[in-house]
Amino acid sequence: MSIITSKSNNLIKKTKKLLQKKHRNDSYLIEGWHLFEEAVKAKATFRHIFVLGEMIDRLPADQEAILVTSDILKELSDAPTPQGIVAEVVLEDGDLPDFQTGRYLVLEDVQDPGNLGTMVRTADAAGLDGVILSDKSADLYNPKTLRSMQGSHFHLPVFRQSLPFVFAKMKATGLPILATTLSEQSVDYRELDHLETFALVMGNEGQGISSETADIADQLVHISMPGQAESLNVAVAAGIVIFSLL
Amino acid sequence: MSIITSKSNNLIKKTKKLLQKKHRNDSYLIEGWHLFEEAVKAKATFRHIFVLGEMIDRLPADQEAILVTSDILKELSDAPTPQGIVAEVVLEDGDLPDFQTGRYLVLEDVQDPGNLGTMVRTADAAGLDGVILSDKSADLYNPKTLRSMQGSHFHLPVFRQSLPFVFAKMKATGLPILATTLSEQSVDYRELDHLETFALVMGNEGQGISSETADIADQLVHISMPGQAESLNVAVAAGIVIFSLL
Repeated sequence: MSIITSKSNNLIKKTKKLLQKKHRNDSYLIEGWHLFEEAVKAKATFRHIFVLGEMIDRLPADQEAILVTSDILKELSDAPTPQGIVAEVVLEDGDLPDFQTGRYLVLEDVQDPGNLGTMVRTADAAGLDGVILSDKSADLYNPKTLRSMQGSHFHLPVFRQSLPFVFAKMKATGLPILATTLSEQSVDYRELDHLETFALVMGNEGQGISSETADIADQLVHISMPGQAESLNVAVAAGIVIFSLL
Repeated sequence: MSIITSKSNNLIKKTKKLLQKKHRNDSYLIEGWHLFEEAVKAKATFRHIFVLGEMIDRLPADQEAILVTSDILKELSDAPTPQGIVAEVVLEDGDLPDFQTGRYLVLEDVQDPGNLGTMVRTADAAGLDGVILSDKSADLYNPKTLRSMQGSHFHLPVFRQSLPFVFAKMKATGLPILATTLSEQSVDYRELDHLETFALVMGNEGQGISSETADIADQLVHISMPGQAESLNVAVAAGIVIFSLL
């Protein structure tokens, strides 16, 4: 058990950099007890755990921690009121599934960290088997993504991968690819046949899915909207389609 | 047509204050051409329209505008890259419906402006008849709410009202009140009978609906989740239940 009381301590300065994507090589920061407990349950590997002195009793006995001040925790978090713990979690790469079976959510260039995190959380709630992010999607380890994800990335695998490669693998195994579109020149989600396995593709907030994805999809899907809004928020649309497929 | 080039102009200083809730008495600011065009379509009353000089051609001929610099537009907006127009819109109070009929979304103490805006947008997309916000819900005219709402408040009425008063009116006309809960001691949304009219209540992000609302509701509803997430984002949950009720 060590103690750090200065914001200019080298480890604090180095750790603070992990709030920025360009400095996240093989680890990221989580903030708050809920996320920390989810990480422990998921047997995540911690590089460092920074805890407020008065909260040390909440830490499992087998975890080595560094006691810090609330000023230091504020340095290590972008939350307005950090909850007493920040941990550096080591990234673990998993192998992409073989897509012989399973139900997947694919996010093509989703830009907003809140939308991305919310969709991973929804995929988790629905019991899907994994989420695949395109190369250009928002960062999974952005503090905003982590907040809206609420630890769901500890429950189901999330991969970042080039989509043409992923779709080729899915095509090879015959996994049906559904892609959502705003065009009513497609099937309404209520009319979809029940599918035991699928990959559901949600597109970018402004542009939707790419024409390449539309071409490769086995089925284009839309949500009929009786009202005046031009579109739904992408995470809401994902929730509606995913839960209707269960 | 007048021109303002200084950020310290009194009108600019006064208008900038409208970005803060405490200064919004009878008007609010919208930013960007999409929202402005929605406001024009909805015949909103503008107090002032601030436009970037080079974009003046996009303005309808019958609208009086003040030409400003991009620096001034940045002052009047919290968007990182304002799109060339900011307008001060006069608030208009509508009368609460009599609830003899219709389909309504009721938000009880929803705290996050993004969630609130997204749910108004979803209610609009679904063609609902209105949204009612409890006194303690986030502000409808917060810039973040306005961004996620995408102009939907110009398409359907949104009221801020004390919920006991609203529920009493609904009870008097027999409008069925559905309230969502995390408890599985309630009906799964898939098992709801078809309802021609309803009020669907969504609760606070952390606390859910209040016990008073649970008591007054005609039906408690939950979304069965086969996965591990403890809950869904409130706006995603609202989307799933609303679209299943259509």
